[in-house]
Amino acid sequence: MKRYILPSALVLLAACQTVPPAAPVAPAAPVAAEAAEPPPVQPAPGQQWLYGSAEARIAMVQDWNAIAAFVETRAANRPNASVVLAPGATAEAADFLPCGDKPLAAVFDADETLIWNLGVTAATQRMGKAFDLETWTAWERTGAGKAVAIPGAVDGLARIRAAGVEVIVNTNRSRETAAGNAATLRAAGLGDFVHGSTLFLRGDDGGGSGKDGRRETISQTYCVVALVGDQLGDIADLFNARTLTPPARKAMTANPAFDQMWGNGWFILANPVYGPSIAGSMDEVFPADTYWEPPGPN
Amino acid sequence: MKRYILPSALVLLAACQTVPPAAPVAPAAPVAAEAAEPPPVQPAPGQQWLYGSAEARIAMVQDWNAIAAFVETRAANRPNASVVLAPGATAEAADFLPCGDKPLAAVFDADETLIWNLGVTAATQRMGKAFDLETWTAWERTGAGKAVAIPGAVDGLARIRAAGVEVIVNTNRSRETAAGNAATLRAAGLGDFVHGSTLFLRGDDGGGSGKDGRRETISQTYCVVALVGDQLGDIADLFNARTLTPPARKAMTANPAFDQMWGNGWFILANPVYGPSIAGSMDEVFPADTYWEPPGPN
Repeated sequence: MKRYILPSALVLLAACQTVPPAAPVAPAAPVAAEAAEPPPVQPAPGQQWLYGSAEARIAMVQDWNAIAAFVETRAANRPNASVVLAPGATAEAADFLPCGDKPLAAVFDADETLIWNLGVTAATQRMGKAFDLETWTAWERTGAGKAVAIPGAVDGLARIRAAGVEVIVNTNRSRETAAGNAATLRAAGLGDFVHGSTLFLRGDDGGGSGKDGRRETISQTYCVVALVGDQLGDIADLFNARTLTPPARKAMTANPAFDQMWGNGWFILANPVYGPSIAGSMDEVFPADTYWEPPGPN
Repeated sequence: MKRYILPSALVLLAACQTVPPAAPVAPAAPVAAEAAEPPPVQPAPGQQWLYGSAEARIAMVQDWNAIAAFVETRAANRPNASVVLAPGATAEAADFLPCGDKPLAAVFDADETLIWNLGVTAATQRMGKAFDLETWTAWERTGAGKAVAIPGAVDGLARIRAAGVEVIVNTNRSRETAAGNAATLRAAGLGDFVHGSTLFLRGDDGGGSGKDGRRETISQTYCVVALVGDQLGDIADLFNARTLTPPARKAMTANPAFDQMWGNGWFILANPVYGPSIAGSMDEVFPADTYWEPPGPN
């Protein structure tokens, strides 16, 4: 279909995700001085759903209620094992770290788990980009007050803290912007987080964006009863092996040893806007055995 | 869903979904006869997330476990009131239908609630369209076996039936294609549904795509303990008033009388692919008080 796409369709694209409204779609030919204004920037469909819809608000409230209820149950019935996989664990040998008598904690990703990054997402959309590293870094430093708590998160964290469980953030925001990151969480009403104590950042160890090392550091002090994020890397790094195709990655989460953990200590919140979940070819997203065409006209 | 999307928006969506980011910036100038082949069709980002990602599979499993657990609890502790709003109910007077001694039922939407419509979604994507009514109608007739049960749904329905609760489908698939719709649900492993008894379709009454009338019909026989869908119209038609902007629609779901129902008899599953949740301008999706720009270079 693309080979037939018309300039008018390209103009419409200006309202989509990655194309600035004016530059790339403007025809090379001169236009009249009174040319129509470019169409307004529009949110991407995923942004409309996640940040704009009643349905996504509800999905978040449901999830946060479930997370809080689960942690309350664990606080009332202390487990022997953490929900953090032990080093070297696999689907075939899914060992978890022991808890001993350590105090309980719940560990959360920040972006699109505790907060919705509205300010920077709108700014990047207006720029006609999907992501811009320089803009994102500025956001980590200066975005406090322009990100909002995800619906249900403030009440959920209050319930978790009231149950005597420490709330800890393990995020791939940078150690370099620690002050801005803590300010962003505080301004969203989520509490005061202390770097190295209740706030763990990319750069805190040599693990890069992998979070296993930070989970192990947290586990030296705490028994972790819940891991919550919008991406599998918030649960365990093994899900992010680069060799995994989207179908293989999905199949790995359905392994019985792992599958019984979802909603039962491991929690994933919907984020169709960005991240490793937005991937896959037609063949990977639509399995061959579901191939269908409408019947012909006769 | 269709009535919420303007034709212009459909064109826009089609362009958004089918043209990879690189395409619009390619020069329009003619190229040599041996021009490169058109880029392959790609799934839209929302399709990649929902149908392709591990994260969405997990979100569905979590939701379905929560739905089944909730219904089991209700079956063990019979409620006095249904979760179907009484005629004329509002946020200020959120009355529910009485249950009497009627048998219990859970009521589900079909599309993107019980089944993922993989066959037709891929076919429509290959056509370069967001939606095509003729193709969709053919899908209702002939798609059996090419839609799949949503992860967690087969197990969830088994638990609900084992608890003695009837499973009923209330869908906007057409009465005209009743046989194909029942065959599609059966082929997906979800059970045998009987039109007029456990399967209710658009056209069964004069309510068009509104589902309140069908919910009242079901409630003449059953005490409904759960309503489950991917859109607010699966819960109550009042959420679909055409005068509601996306922010007003969202705010309505947060009214205390309604907010306590989410995850507690009313359940919404994520669907960022289509429907009334995919709407809203920049100002509607990104509230003014979250406006942010990166600081200037100096």
